[in-house]
Amino acid sequence: MLNPVSDAFKSELQAALPGTAFREVTEAYLTEPRGRYHGRAGLIVAPETVEEVALVVRAANRHHVPVVPYGGGTGLVGGQVAPDLPDPVLLSMARMARVREVLAAENVLIAEGGAILAEVQAAAEAEDRLFPLSYGSEGSARIGAALAVNSGGLNVLRYGSARDLCLGIEAVLPTGEILHGLKRLRKDNTGYDLRHLLIGSEGTLGIITAAALKLSPRPAETGTALIEVASPEAALEVLQRARGLCNETLSAFELISGQGPRFVAEAGVPARLVLEPVPDWMVLIEVGTAADGAPGEVLERLYGGALEDGLVGDGVIARSEAQRAEIWRLREAIPEANRIIGSVASHDVSLPLGVIAEFMEGAEAALAIFGDVRINAFGHLGDGNLHYNVFPAAGKRREDYDGLRQAVTETVHDLVVGMGGSFSAEHGIGRMKVGELERYGDPAKLATMRAIKTALDPNGILNPGAVLRLEDG
Amino acid sequence: MLNPVSDAFKSELQAALPGTAFREVTEAYLTEPRGRYHGRAGLIVAPETVEEVALVVRAANRHHVPVVPYGGGTGLVGGQVAPDLPDPVLLSMARMARVREVLAAENVLIAEGGAILAEVQAAAEAEDRLFPLSYGSEGSARIGAALAVNSGGLNVLRYGSARDLCLGIEAVLPTGEILHGLKRLRKDNTGYDLRHLLIGSEGTLGIITAAALKLSPRPAETGTALIEVASPEAALEVLQRARGLCNETLSAFELISGQGPRFVAEAGVPARLVLEPVPDWMVLIEVGTAADGAPGEVLERLYGGALEDGLVGDGVIARSEAQRAEIWRLREAIPEANRIIGSVASHDVSLPLGVIAEFMEGAEAALAIFGDVRINAFGHLGDGNLHYNVFPAAGKRREDYDGLRQAVTETVHDLVVGMGGSFSAEHGIGRMKVGELERYGDPAKLATMRAIKTALDPNGILNPGAVLRLEDG
Repeated sequence: MLNPVSDAFKSELQAALPGTAFREVTEAYLTEPRGRYHGRAGLIVAPETVEEVALVVRAANRHHVPVVPYGGGTGLVGGQVAPDLPDPVLLSMARMARVREVLAAENVLIAEGGAILAEVQAAAEAEDRLFPLSYGSEGSARIGAALAVNSGGLNVLRYGSARDLCLGIEAVLPTGEILHGLKRLRKDNTGYDLRHLLIGSEGTLGIITAAALKLSPRPAETGTALIEVASPEAALEVLQRARGLCNETLSAFELISGQGPRFVAEAGVPARLVLEPVPDWMVLIEVGTAADGAPGEVLERLYGGALEDGLVGDGVIARSEAQRAEIWRLREAIPEANRIIGSVASHDVSLPLGVIAEFMEGAEAALAIFGDVRINAFGHLGDGNLHYNVFPAAGKRREDYDGLRQAVTETVHDLVVGMGGSFSAEHGIGRMKVGELERYGDPAKLATMRAIKTALDPNGILNPGAVLRLEDG
Repeated sequence: MLNPVSDAFKSELQAALPGTAFREVTEAYLTEPRGRYHGRAGLIVAPETVEEVALVVRAANRHHVPVVPYGGGTGLVGGQVAPDLPDPVLLSMARMARVREVLAAENVLIAEGGAILAEVQAAAEAEDRLFPLSYGSEGSARIGAALAVNSGGLNVLRYGSARDLCLGIEAVLPTGEILHGLKRLRKDNTGYDLRHLLIGSEGTLGIITAAALKLSPRPAETGTALIEVASPEAALEVLQRARGLCNETLSAFELISGQGPRFVAEAGVPARLVLEPVPDWMVLIEVGTAADGAPGEVLERLYGGALEDGLVGDGVIARSEAQRAEIWRLREAIPEANRIIGSVASHDVSLPLGVIAEFMEGAEAALAIFGDVRINAFGHLGDGNLHYNVFPAAGKRREDYDGLRQAVTETVHDLVVGMGGSFSAEHGIGRMKVGELERYGDPAKLATMRAIKTALDPNGILNPGAVLRLEDG
């Protein structure tokens, strides 16, 4: 049984924390990027230290007040806004935003949970190192939340997801105890890996207040290409060859459907289309090497061989930083165009690499029953991760399909899960996909998750209703 | 309250499983490599399918009979033998040893939990792929157990530990339920990561019956060098430079103390010493590149620069496969020699890279109070992981130090943990380091581990006494 923030609870916190810790409840805290949820808040508090976070959580646990951890507010599945709870306390990480230390010789960076992702990247770069986690919202996303949702993005192929970039964490557990695990060790086999349990738990098992992060050397030379491919299947063959030629120096391998650049043009998003006429399928390939790695030559060789074998057509290998930026600008413009066009339904799926081409054909055929739709499939092919988005036919609006959204999503997700894929590759469950997790999740996994949640958070105060359904009572 | 295997329990299993599933209780099952523990067994059963594993665990859970999972029997911390339990059922994975599938195009291999590590490597190699997990006992170690203890070895620097090589698992939970998580996805953010929780839990939260494993392209060219370094500090500087030059193509960076080769000679282990006279400190460096990567030239450049700066002395860069084998042979001979010489105490520690040199000095000074000892420190410097082993002075025997073992270990571990390191980098806790985990572990971590264990294994039947102390009652 959860209680809303009460005057007694407020007074208790106000007596214990400085006035600067409290924030006005504004709209910005209650909305999320896709506009599907509108949250509630009885109090917004932004602690400055892990002890203050622990104090808030302990009080909430005593009063059975729900705590919704709040990072950059950029999550896409409603994990950060709770419409259906007794007025919760929003715990903002905005005042724990420091990069504490860059240990360049160790390739380690220590950041507080509220540190902005772009600032973490910049702090690494200032010491000639790379923090490779990178995605669209990096200017607002906070590292503790990025870990909480195990975010992915553009460089996962080479460097892994957020969890792979984390050596240790400090966190506040649902009882308000502090987990001291801010180790900067590459190897540490001392008991259950609570770091990996908290990472990806979306703030339901703990609040990550600091993290030790893995840095990498910055590639000395970077090669980038945008190449027409004959089909998704040909793209997979080119991926194979690229892995063989480049191995770990392959940093990105993105599939782009022709629908993407066509939407960019239709929506008037400023970006060059690079390849014209726009091919039906393209791949964006990036290779980053040490000095003398000659990534441009590697891309030439890859392209030449694939051209001979009829796998690829038109192509551009960047000859300058400006050309390289142009190619990436096109990739980044696609989600912007998508938002303007307005999707019927969007899907963040992953599949075993071997069945992706088959999935593409199957999904298109299955979606035919919904009449005229446009499909924009793009994403991180190297990771088997596609953003498979369904749009209104030309001249129609998303509202024309309102009754169909659920059925479209079920069609796509049924097919994905049936082929051994995932209905949430990198965005998480949040509040949006709780039903999907129940529908598609392994029953033993769900039962185990519930048992862990109950054991660690007996009063159910931490981000209730995210990942696991809020139970009645 | 646990019960020993009873006649009723035996009869129940014998009625449900074919006769071929039962194994005679022999000494081999009750001993472990270091001879510290002698286990007990009321019954040894080797199921052939996940359903049979589940059947055994369900029966054990009903009868409150302890289950000790048994892989290759190679663990170094007593996780596989239980001297202090009511006669348990030993659950051998020897009959679930198949490599089910190699999906070369996906860089994925599916193996049963009992598959021998060397056979997994061979199956990958047969398809021109690399399964990089590699260590001394790979001819006996089984992959499910390797995951259960998150084993490390020689290639962690480049490819990660066992957990980093695993995409999905199938497992039997302590209640006998089957966790179906054999996914072969690079990205899957759908709920708590139970895979990472079970990996490293040393068979106390589940029995891993199958795994989807990540393969890599095999390096086309390999360069190997053994180089004298001025000091551990100089070794770290060379590591830095190697990372800058080679980045991810650096496969191994091993520190070798001169004591190692000297022990090899003293113990008469067949191996060339490679560098003579034996330097006080050496590093073994291996670089594996794609075709045209010229790893030999990279090593020449690294060596030349470091020589100019006085960081390194004598050195050999392998000019042939035979020379390469000779260098690795020396590395492998060191643990063999250690076993013959007989250590007073051995330690599998890790440290932040930045404090390793300081640790070496501090440990030698602190151990001086135990009088004349010889220290052989070697291991995976690139991972910050040292096998820091203390030996009798020349002419003395390990028995002469019997009363000191505990104090020596405490001295080393106190120093390691005080410097932010780990007292078990890659071997795990097992039964040997339960006390250390209680002494050095974060109290919130321990409490959380106990809560998880109780929630998932309410009768406490799965590998009781490993990782967490067996509770009375």
